[in-house]
Amino acid sequence: MTSSFPHRDSKVEQVSTYENTAENETLLRDLLQKIEPVSDSLCQAATHRLDNLTKPIGSLGKLEELAVRMCCIQNKTLGIAADPLRIYAIAGDHGVNEEGVSVFTQDVTRQMVQNFCDGGAGINVLANTAGAELCVVDLASKGDCYPEHDSLIQCKIAQGTQNISKAPAMSREMCLRALLIGAELADKALKEGCPSIGTGEMGVSNTTPSTALYCAYLGLQPQDITGAGGGLDSKGITRKTSVIERALSLHSATIKTGDPIDILATLGGYEIAALAGLILGGAANNQLVLLDGFIATAAYTAAWKLCPTVKDYAFFSHASAEAGHKQILTKLDIDPLHDLGLRLGEGSGVPLALFLMRCACNTYNQMTTYSDTDVEPPDNL
Amino acid sequence: MTSSFPHRDSKVEQVSTYENTAENETLLRDLLQKIEPVSDSLCQAATHRLDNLTKPIGSLGKLEELAVRMCCIQNKTLGIAADPLRIYAIAGDHGVNEEGVSVFTQDVTRQMVQNFCDGGAGINVLANTAGAELCVVDLASKGDCYPEHDSLIQCKIAQGTQNISKAPAMSREMCLRALLIGAELADKALKEGCPSIGTGEMGVSNTTPSTALYCAYLGLQPQDITGAGGGLDSKGITRKTSVIERALSLHSATIKTGDPIDILATLGGYEIAALAGLILGGAANNQLVLLDGFIATAAYTAAWKLCPTVKDYAFFSHASAEAGHKQILTKLDIDPLHDLGLRLGEGSGVPLALFLMRCACNTYNQMTTYSDTDVEPPDNL
Repeated sequence: MTSSFPHRDSKVEQVSTYENTAENETLLRDLLQKIEPVSDSLCQAATHRLDNLTKPIGSLGKLEELAVRMCCIQNKTLGIAADPLRIYAIAGDHGVNEEGVSVFTQDVTRQMVQNFCDGGAGINVLANTAGAELCVVDLASKGDCYPEHDSLIQCKIAQGTQNISKAPAMSREMCLRALLIGAELADKALKEGCPSIGTGEMGVSNTTPSTALYCAYLGLQPQDITGAGGGLDSKGITRKTSVIERALSLHSATIKTGDPIDILATLGGYEIAALAGLILGGAANNQLVLLDGFIATAAYTAAWKLCPTVKDYAFFSHASAEAGHKQILTKLDIDPLHDLGLRLGEGSGVPLALFLMRCACNTYNQMTTYSDTDVEPPDNL
Repeated sequence: MTSSFPHRDSKVEQVSTYENTAENETLLRDLLQKIEPVSDSLCQAATHRLDNLTKPIGSLGKLEELAVRMCCIQNKTLGIAADPLRIYAIAGDHGVNEEGVSVFTQDVTRQMVQNFCDGGAGINVLANTAGAELCVVDLASKGDCYPEHDSLIQCKIAQGTQNISKAPAMSREMCLRALLIGAELADKALKEGCPSIGTGEMGVSNTTPSTALYCAYLGLQPQDITGAGGGLDSKGITRKTSVIERALSLHSATIKTGDPIDILATLGGYEIAALAGLILGGAANNQLVLLDGFIATAAYTAAWKLCPTVKDYAFFSHASAEAGHKQILTKLDIDPLHDLGLRLGEGSGVPLALFLMRCACNTYNQMTTYSDTDVEPPDNL
């Protein structure tokens, strides 16, 4: 197997872990204030260029919409780029696993992190195929540190969450740390030359907290959106649904406050909070933020509750086969790029979206215009 | 702009033009007999491998379905490959253009063929982005030969079709020649190392004959499936619809015979017939046949009427934004890979499909299995 990390020569640097919790509320507030709406002032110029490329007007469909959005985010009308893109696959464990909500044991989180480092997982192969960089981050998997690896960031701040059906997943303080680490990962990618970042994760049972978050943030019902995760049968899904119902009931007072961070801390997960921070950080940096599926959209929902403007920077790769995802996307008014029945997680949708965004950039940047050729424009131009 | 043709070093060779029309009926019959149904005997072994990769069972969705189909077509359970892929962009003109069914003049076919050779069209950029080879074929565009180009096959057999609202598009003899040229293009790609071929085309007004073919082959109504093509307004669409209605009425006796070749000759186009031949040839060669949108599906429908088994080899890249295409795909029981609002033609959907098929091959071939790692399998394996 070739290297999983085509865009980087050297070892990744580590990140801060934000142990001075007194400062963290301020740091998050500053981050949110840095996020600006994307101006649509370049839309017209970008559309003018698209209409003058040698093709029927509008005939590249969503690729044209992507190109216009990228022009606006990158504040240029030529030379837009989605590459290089770095996917952060962030690992965290979930105490709720003990309720029997997954077909995998909790040890599999750790084993899969090792598999990511060894290059054998789905996300490795897909990232390689698309020419995306993969960076693995251990934030809160259970167990000791991992052997050193050039592309592994070890910033473990916890041994997984508590069981959300019995206790808050984590404290507000720990949630803030995870959020800020995520935002720093976006900064790091920018500093190391990536205009784009992608969300990846590994955390056995993390569809359970994600589902709980959707219910708490969007008012959806567990019985409508609880799915099979890694492969539960119908009995397992019934059990998982009732675990989520218990969690929502136990934490109803927190949910009623509507505070996005308290809800994320109580029902979420470390990797989900870090992905929310990554999304916020990417938006603050004017990066293109490519989102995978069910878990990523839960992180996005948390980020969007904190700052609705993140939507301007978010690109949704696919509608997951995980039950409920389409309903959730509709509720969020999101039209994703693919619908391929994927439900792997890990960030696997991101390389597929990257390819389409690269197609959008290349057609926009490289196609000939009517003015540069002898091709006659259509009579409706 | 870099070369559009990454997979080939030397000039393309020319093809036969099948001028001995007496033999051609026999040649086509032989071709049809060469096409065998794809055996599903390897399905189980391929699925077994997929289920043992380190991922939840079935979690790669359509990528897994693609991998299984490729195993069966390529008759192997490891080392499946979609690359290299050659797209044939076949050009032909249409007499019906004189009825005002397009926003482009007929000269644009020729100008765009030159644009393909110069590397400036959408299909060039998308093929480059995906690492697909593009081979341009002038079969029946109006005008003289083109300047020589390493990737242009000049096998002009006509100066476009006749106006289908007033006469048959071409004779059965000429249609057979186009079909056989298309099949030879598939052979050529195979001989030159391509396990996959893609359909591309250039022919101003070719949504009109395509729509007429759908009506004749599938019993659809012009008012339900006639679209804007390159960008007609509603008045233009009304005009185009009535042109198609006139053509169907004029040629109703031929349509009633149900003879797929006579219908193709009467209502189709040279490039559409050649694409039908390309599809048949690819199927006869056990190649993966990647189809673009509205025009390609019309060619596929003709091929499928001649030999329903072609379906086993066909991969549909996308649902076009051209009105009617989704209804047509449903009628043909086809679930395409993308739905991106594309309506460019040229073969533009093929590179997008190739990327997904490459992802399917790579995950299938390269991911680690549970037996090769310490990752514990799920309890449902």
